[in-house]
Amino acid sequence: MAYSVAPLERLIEHFASMQGIGRKTAQRMAFEVLALSEEDAARFADDIRDARKNIKYCHICQNLSAQETCTICSNPLREQTTICVVEDVKAVMAIEKTESYEGVYHVLHGTISPMEGIGPDQLKIKELLARITPQTQEVILATNPTVEGDATALYLSRLLKPMGVKVTRLAYGIPVGGDLEYADEVTLSRAMSGRSEL
Amino acid sequence: MAYSVAPLERLIEHFASMQGIGRKTAQRMAFEVLALSEEDAARFADDIRDARKNIKYCHICQNLSAQETCTICSNPLREQTTICVVEDVKAVMAIEKTESYEGVYHVLHGTISPMEGIGPDQLKIKELLARITPQTQEVILATNPTVEGDATALYLSRLLKPMGVKVTRLAYGIPVGGDLEYADEVTLSRAMSGRSEL
Repeated sequence: MAYSVAPLERLIEHFASMQGIGRKTAQRMAFEVLALSEEDAARFADDIRDARKNIKYCHICQNLSAQETCTICSNPLREQTTICVVEDVKAVMAIEKTESYEGVYHVLHGTISPMEGIGPDQLKIKELLARITPQTQEVILATNPTVEGDATALYLSRLLKPMGVKVTRLAYGIPVGGDLEYADEVTLSRAMSGRSEL
Repeated sequence: MAYSVAPLERLIEHFASMQGIGRKTAQRMAFEVLALSEEDAARFADDIRDARKNIKYCHICQNLSAQETCTICSNPLREQTTICVVEDVKAVMAIEKTESYEGVYHVLHGTISPMEGIGPDQLKIKELLARITPQTQEVILATNPTVEGDATALYLSRLLKPMGVKVTRLAYGIPVGGDLEYADEVTLSRAMSGRSEL
């Protein structure tokens, strides 16, 4: 009979139910919680409740936000005329980290994937179309370079182009620091066809 | 400027402060919390608070317990006359999983380690000595086979033997399923000196 303490067991279950967290890691994490001061544990608990309760989607770009409108959409220094369309919030965070983009975002919350039964209606596509105005200068399709990401980008470009907006796609190619020898054929041929003059 | 949502950021910090959890994993875990239903998130929060608040050390064996006395010490089917001394609670869980031990435990909560400034006084050694009665038949020293674990076992045996109690140590040797070729020299020589007749 395995020894278990009910409250500890419940805590381990919560951690173990997360993707990529195995039973051993969950157990170790639960022990770390026990080692916290009582105030720190209470703060941890409050923050979980708080995050789940107070984080919503920005009503404009569908990004995670603590307010009705996220800090990017409400920032007057950002170019509201350039919209970068991404699959998920992690992509927003990744692009923001580069500090090289000054426009705004639109988060689709997924990609079109017939295999998983996800069609255009499950994504935030009509919210994107509603944002396109005559002032919109460019829509950058920054979905991932996967079959689903490409299909979604193609689908969107067909909807957007008739609206008279410039539609672009992120560049494909050899990653910086990469080695031609180890690049896969598809990436290499895309890098070749996307070559630019020096 | 990196995009951040304060409540999400706080949650990521909590996860990232745990040993072995990197920033990326912490972020992924925080997103999983956001994906929970509001009730599940509340239950998670409650369980963290609850575990930290209600789990204490058993007053007899110093194992984690939700009650004053743990379920092992209070179990009349367990032999109270055999005490297995371990370093930490994880060792209790590991031994309990084998379902081959029917005695009780004593958790030291560490090992003697002059390098880290941990002496016998910081461990639950006087609590162990206080448990030894004329009825005690055997004390099994099941500290880990490390320098500190061995030193602690040796220290304890010197205290316990004069009390007239049988003191034993877990067997060292080749792990089951292991290969002699890959066993280190110390393990192999211990396995040799600890050989038994068939």
